[in-house]
Amino acid sequence: QMNTSRFMAEPITDSKALLGDKENMRHRMEILIMEIQAEFCRALEAEENCGQKFKVDRWERPEGGGGITCVLQDGDVFEKAGVNISVVTGSLPPAAVQQMRARGKNLKEGASLPFFASGVSAVIHPRNPHVPTIHFNYRYFEVETAKGEKQWWFGGGTDLTPYYLCEKDASHFHQTLKSACDEHDPTYYPRFKKWCDDYFRIKHRNESRGIGGIFFDDIDSPNQEAAFNFVSSCARAVIPSYVPLVRKHKNREYGNNERQWQLLRRGRYVEFNLIYDRGTKFGLYTPGARYESILMSLPLHARWEYMHEPKSQSEEGKLMKVLKNPKDWV
Amino acid sequence: QMNTSRFMAEPITDSKALLGDKENMRHRMEILIMEIQAEFCRALEAEENCGQKFKVDRWERPEGGGGITCVLQDGDVFEKAGVNISVVTGSLPPAAVQQMRARGKNLKEGASLPFFASGVSAVIHPRNPHVPTIHFNYRYFEVETAKGEKQWWFGGGTDLTPYYLCEKDASHFHQTLKSACDEHDPTYYPRFKKWCDDYFRIKHRNESRGIGGIFFDDIDSPNQEAAFNFVSSCARAVIPSYVPLVRKHKNREYGNNERQWQLLRRGRYVEFNLIYDRGTKFGLYTPGARYESILMSLPLHARWEYMHEPKSQSEEGKLMKVLKNPKDWV
Repeated sequence: QMNTSRFMAEPITDSKALLGDKENMRHRMEILIMEIQAEFCRALEAEENCGQKFKVDRWERPEGGGGITCVLQDGDVFEKAGVNISVVTGSLPPAAVQQMRARGKNLKEGASLPFFASGVSAVIHPRNPHVPTIHFNYRYFEVETAKGEKQWWFGGGTDLTPYYLCEKDASHFHQTLKSACDEHDPTYYPRFKKWCDDYFRIKHRNESRGIGGIFFDDIDSPNQEAAFNFVSSCARAVIPSYVPLVRKHKNREYGNNERQWQLLRRGRYVEFNLIYDRGTKFGLYTPGARYESILMSLPLHARWEYMHEPKSQSEEGKLMKVLKNPKDWV
Repeated sequence: QMNTSRFMAEPITDSKALLGDKENMRHRMEILIMEIQAEFCRALEAEENCGQKFKVDRWERPEGGGGITCVLQDGDVFEKAGVNISVVTGSLPPAAVQQMRARGKNLKEGASLPFFASGVSAVIHPRNPHVPTIHFNYRYFEVETAKGEKQWWFGGGTDLTPYYLCEKDASHFHQTLKSACDEHDPTYYPRFKKWCDDYFRIKHRNESRGIGGIFFDDIDSPNQEAAFNFVSSCARAVIPSYVPLVRKHKNREYGNNERQWQLLRRGRYVEFNLIYDRGTKFGLYTPGARYESILMSLPLHARWEYMHEPKSQSEEGKLMKVLKNPKDWV
């Protein structure tokens, strides 16, 4: 029998079925994301000084599958932390199929196609402006091709959004991700670092959301086993890349200026997520989507000031320089 | 000579040219929006108890034209108030032409087309949660048709977003807009009220942004003179529809609960503007757009809580009922 007590809730797939076919990639991915979710939530809870815990919502989707949304709100270290997994089957609407075709997938045009998707995603907004925000997402996708065969791929990434730049932290973060990538393919980190810089760009402001990390999609080589192992390594690198930064800065002093700057940058985070983020858009335009799980990525508070521009020599200005021109950290 | 001292800044078009051809609709519209901007800004400043004033930015656009952005931030009555006019000429990219064709405009496909656009738009976020947010926008557009002729139309609307429902206020607001419409065509108010309810819908939440008002586009009948007069009436109805509500509620007491609810609703306002609003999207995707003038509509502060739902019998719950199912107010 499967010991599900280490998870945040019962798996979406019946645990007998999960154990019954352990080789099935859908099952392997579901167990991985359940583990990642639980380990990350526990690691964050351990940083809370007053014992704040994640609230757990297990939800089912009428069309098939469901998810587990864990949110910790108003903690003393984390202002809002959301860690979500979902395991979903259904029918991909023609518009979504068209989008995938545009990305080079050999799918039947103009029809709805059966699909399977599972993934873990998290956005952590700490209270202290010296602790960066982290986001990660790792996912597995299956869809039926024009020939009626199954096509599968993995996608994902981890990226960091600091409010104040600490070069040592940035290097530590990127180095941890690079090491996870390098185990599998030395070309991965440089490619996926650049992909991340390109993706998390707030185009209308010509600035990046944060200092990047890695981002990739459509990974289906060299084989399913190797791709899964790569994604597992990336997902397991999240805690060592991030939790040391939380521990280092969470008790640092800060004042109202730092807080206001953090809120302004959170406004930029909202702009990116609502205007550009593919997952958010795809989610919100899907009828019957669980929008609370999609929008848990938004901060508890955000601020917009007209024409705010920090002085170039200030700490805020130093961050802006790096957001305007992404740099290499390892 | 033109007395430009009543405006917030010098007109975008040279005032000799403005006066030289007074019959030109471009000029008549520019003078109208300058007047509306100045009258509205002065009316709001008069409600500030400590004399907070609008800051005025006059800007030019390298591609042609420019605008005047007026923002009052951190007032004691208005937390953030933005009133913007723009008078712009340029070349409409093929994607924008395609969108207009989809709306039934007879424009040449796949080409860039010369256009002229001018308009006034405002979003006012008061501090007191008992004072509603108002938004309005009135605009005039010209573009060259497939035959090389000039096509023109007007668009616009005014709508209200209360945090607490006061039925008397809602009726006053709608009645004022209805009277402005009825002067011109008795079918206008019912059609444009419904258009407004349909447009300002936060689809993923299946709720409206506020209690509506009027919204219309593509007005090019019965003739240019009548259409301009209609738009003028609507724009002149803004102050009488709104300022009495500010005066009535601006000094009411409120506590932290009301403030937090206001911030949550402002989060919804951000969701609508960044995900669905046509003007915002069109603006942000236009290369070289002045994003500060587009995003001045965002509130100073917003809040997102996971799974927040007010009790149905509470004042917050009563507002939600009306946002879920828009009703008639006159």
